[in-house]
Amino acid sequence: MVTTVRCTVQTAGQGDIRDMTREVADALTESELQDGLATIAVVGSTAAVTTIEFEPGAVADFDRLLTQLAPRDGHYAHHERWGDDNGSSHVRAALLGASTTLPFTGAQLALGTWQQIVLVECDTRSRTREVLVQLIGE
Amino acid sequence: MVTTVRCTVQTAGQGDIRDMTREVADALTESELQDGLATIAVVGSTAAVTTIEFEPGAVADFDRLLTQLAPRDGHYAHHERWGDDNGSSHVRAALLGASTTLPFTGAQLALGTWQQIVLVECDTRSRTREVLVQLIGE
Amino acid sequence: MVTTVRCTVQTAGQGDIRDMTREVADALTESELQDGLATIAVVGSTAAVTTIEFEPGAVADFDRLLTQLAPRDGHYAHHERWGDDNGSSHVRAALLGASTTLPFTGAQLALGTWQQIVLVECDTRSRTREVLVQLIGE
Repeated sequence: MVTTVRCTVQTAGQGDIRDMTREVADALTESELQDGLATIAVVGSTAAVTTIEFEPGAVADFDRLLTQLAPRDGHYAHHERWGDDNGSSHVRAALLGASTTLPFTGAQLALGTWQQIVLVECDTRSRTREVLVQLIGE
Repeated sequence: MVTTVRCTVQTAGQGDIRDMTREVADALTESELQDGLATIAVVGSTAAVTTIEFEPGAVADFDRLLTQLAPRDGHYAHHERWGDDNGSSHVRAALLGASTTLPFTGAQLALGTWQQIVLVECDTRSRTREVLVQLIGE
Repeated sequence: MVTTVRCTVQTAGQGDIRDMTREVADALTESELQDGLATIAVVGSTAAVTTIEFEPGAVADFDRLLTQLAPRDGHYAHHERWGDDNGSSHVRAALLGASTTLPFTGAQLALGTWQQIVLVECDTRSRTREVLVQLIGE
């Protein structure tokens, strides 16, 4: 049994981290699946999906780490090639990965109380993101 | 066919990296599944799962990289908010991800000889970790 | 329904990043599956799989980030232990992860136009890599 739900999320650009846990939990409830695997994937090469404690402090700390690893105003070969300004976005997204997979059992996601599924916008401008929530199970 | 096994692992805090390969292989044997996908996920926002050559040198090198990226005694907004001391734990876990997925074929995990599945404790204190091993296949 | 395709890829060593999207798309077409999950996994502890815009600039930028995080000529405990020279390879691979999972719907992978699935060779020498493409779905 496979169910896929598409969500659209408007982001404010680099550093915008959005809690998607509710969307995933709702998709799971509607699927009526009990046990299986949830995959949350963002379409595109300048955004990522991971889990974090979704509170402003931890989110700001994570954004600061990403900025330290790939500063927005750094030198990027991608800029020279395309005239783009989002080289930092591409390397952040490649490092984090476009998807996260989590088991669910008894119709409950394997998440801690202080653990949320988040979309990490890495692009330098506002984007309309397509996020797929796919549930496979029984 | 979905099978989920829950493992409990006592860790010694930040820098403790535990080999979980045996637990995953045992779960696979008991499931009697031949071909499918194994997902290994830790519940919570201050630990991660990945693969590495599980020998003390490579493990120490990996811990050193994590310490360089997110020093335990650094400044974290998460600390100011909650009085916690584990801001470094949250950003390490968000960077690495809470789960790893690996195919299996012919009842064998797609792992190299020198490649193990590991739980990476990122929290600053000893924790009792719940790790789910979920197998989907036929 | 589970289908697994094995690909062999000859790499040129550290910094060689190979586009695997065609192999995954071909495996999906041949499977005749419509909806499900694709897992792309490299066997071994010194390579990784992720997604990136596969153009020389972004690829070079990503390689530069990995070099900055884990310089090839750095000091690694792994070297002392085994006489190896690939400590940088192990920590890069553990950071990135050995696999990527992406949903497909209507027999199409959930990839953006400028987003490719890539094998990231982290080892210091040329390797013959085994990459598994596993499709689970209906």
